[in-house]
Amino acid sequence: MILIAERINGMFKDVKQAIQEKNRKVIQDLANKQTDAGASYLDVNVGTAAADQEGTMQWLVETIQSAKGGCSTPLSLDSQKPNVIAAGLKVINAENGVLLNSTPLNKKTDEEILDKYIEMANQAGPKACIIALTMDKNGVPQDTDTRVAIAADIVTKAMEKGFDAQRLFIDPIVLPLKVPNAQVQPGNILAAMDQIRFLSDPPPHITVGLSNISQGAAERSLINRVFLAMAMSHGLDSAIADVLDEDLMNVVAASDMLMNKQIYSDSFLKVYKTVNK
Amino acid sequence: MILIAERINGMFKDVKQAIQEKNRKVIQDLANKQTDAGASYLDVNVGTAAADQEGTMQWLVETIQSAKGGCSTPLSLDSQKPNVIAAGLKVINAENGVLLNSTPLNKKTDEEILDKYIEMANQAGPKACIIALTMDKNGVPQDTDTRVAIAADIVTKAMEKGFDAQRLFIDPIVLPLKVPNAQVQPGNILAAMDQIRFLSDPPPHITVGLSNISQGAAERSLINRVFLAMAMSHGLDSAIADVLDEDLMNVVAASDMLMNKQIYSDSFLKVYKTVNK
Repeated sequence: MILIAERINGMFKDVKQAIQEKNRKVIQDLANKQTDAGASYLDVNVGTAAADQEGTMQWLVETIQSAKGGCSTPLSLDSQKPNVIAAGLKVINAENGVLLNSTPLNKKTDEEILDKYIEMANQAGPKACIIALTMDKNGVPQDTDTRVAIAADIVTKAMEKGFDAQRLFIDPIVLPLKVPNAQVQPGNILAAMDQIRFLSDPPPHITVGLSNISQGAAERSLINRVFLAMAMSHGLDSAIADVLDEDLMNVVAASDMLMNKQIYSDSFLKVYKTVNK
Repeated sequence: MILIAERINGMFKDVKQAIQEKNRKVIQDLANKQTDAGASYLDVNVGTAAADQEGTMQWLVETIQSAKGGCSTPLSLDSQKPNVIAAGLKVINAENGVLLNSTPLNKKTDEEILDKYIEMANQAGPKACIIALTMDKNGVPQDTDTRVAIAADIVTKAMEKGFDAQRLFIDPIVLPLKVPNAQVQPGNILAAMDQIRFLSDPPPHITVGLSNISQGAAERSLINRVFLAMAMSHGLDSAIADVLDEDLMNVVAASDMLMNKQIYSDSFLKVYKTVNK
């Protein structure tokens, strides 16, 4: 399971304050803690913490990379604005990889935005990957078929550009369960995953912003855990998630084992943590 | 979710002792506790507690039905021997339903055992249902396709006999994860469920002996919970399970909600318990 740790995000109060006070320690501690917990990538999102999105993204990247002992966990540069991601790429050490998070297929203006991300990823190096949302100029689809159709367009476009499908993380866009009329969405998303994983061979990765499912809901960790287990049995192999939630990480370990990605041993929870580091 | 509570089974030490000492209170307490926890059926299995399987099954049924206040939760008569189930049926009040648990499609001797169960169920009343294992004269299949093929034969045979598919609980037979080479089984079983639920319209129920998955393993409750969430997203609508495991019951409530069987509310855990009673 490829886990993208969600906590370095200006939407969280402690991170927002750290950004505003230029307090590197708070950010570096989160980088190290999430790495220790098993993060494959550290998500980096300025959020609403600063008007200077580009400069702040660069400050966050430099702060994480200069953590004591040297944090070499690859980063996931998270912004809806390509210029903010580009700013981060200017200062990043992408030797171990980097995730460009995220792009729709195209925009209302018909701008071929995915093309731009493929160019940026190629410039960033052979290990740079892209999170591509199943979203296009018409917005976020609500049904299964449109999600799959957009995913197919994303994979096709990547292939045309010679960009390996395995460098794509397709995100079928999880909506909060609490939104009225959204209760049909989890089923639709799982059904979309069933098809997305057969779009190419080898397949693209499939990822979700897991915590979105429980946005505003009671029992958030429980809902996250249950949906993650379900999704991992439908082909999900990545998630932006709270890796500091130990109950969630135990579900990841058990799911990997049940899906035959990890062999059974009595100490499978410990083994998972060791192997994932 | 149709939950068949597993605890009244002579394989458990307290139940074995109660059977041997003819201690009705232990059995009746388990019946009431499991009913309160949300059991749809109470499984009744003599296990190895007594040589007189038929007499003991009858004693258990009578004991549960004479519980203080009157326990009217339907029973699941659990035995590999049809004569033991038949003995239970002689003394049961099946007004609210009864499960005949369980039969393979047929046996090594080519005996058409499912036919016999259909006859017994019809005699027991219109609400009597059958748990039918995806197992035939060749034993327990290891792959997806044979499981589905046997399930199809079960549904076909039931239809030929005029026995409603909705009175069938198809059990694709869960094997312990800890058994060598069994790690491919959970995936095979989920894939079988994906097909079994489309065998008829309306479909047969799908059930599993959930605790089998974690037999002999560490972290049993975790493994049970994770597999249950996965299976519920592949069409599982019933399980023989430990309803006294509160963490498991919370996963059932969250899964029912994520699968749109229950509407979201902030108190969905409490609502589930109330509705299921």
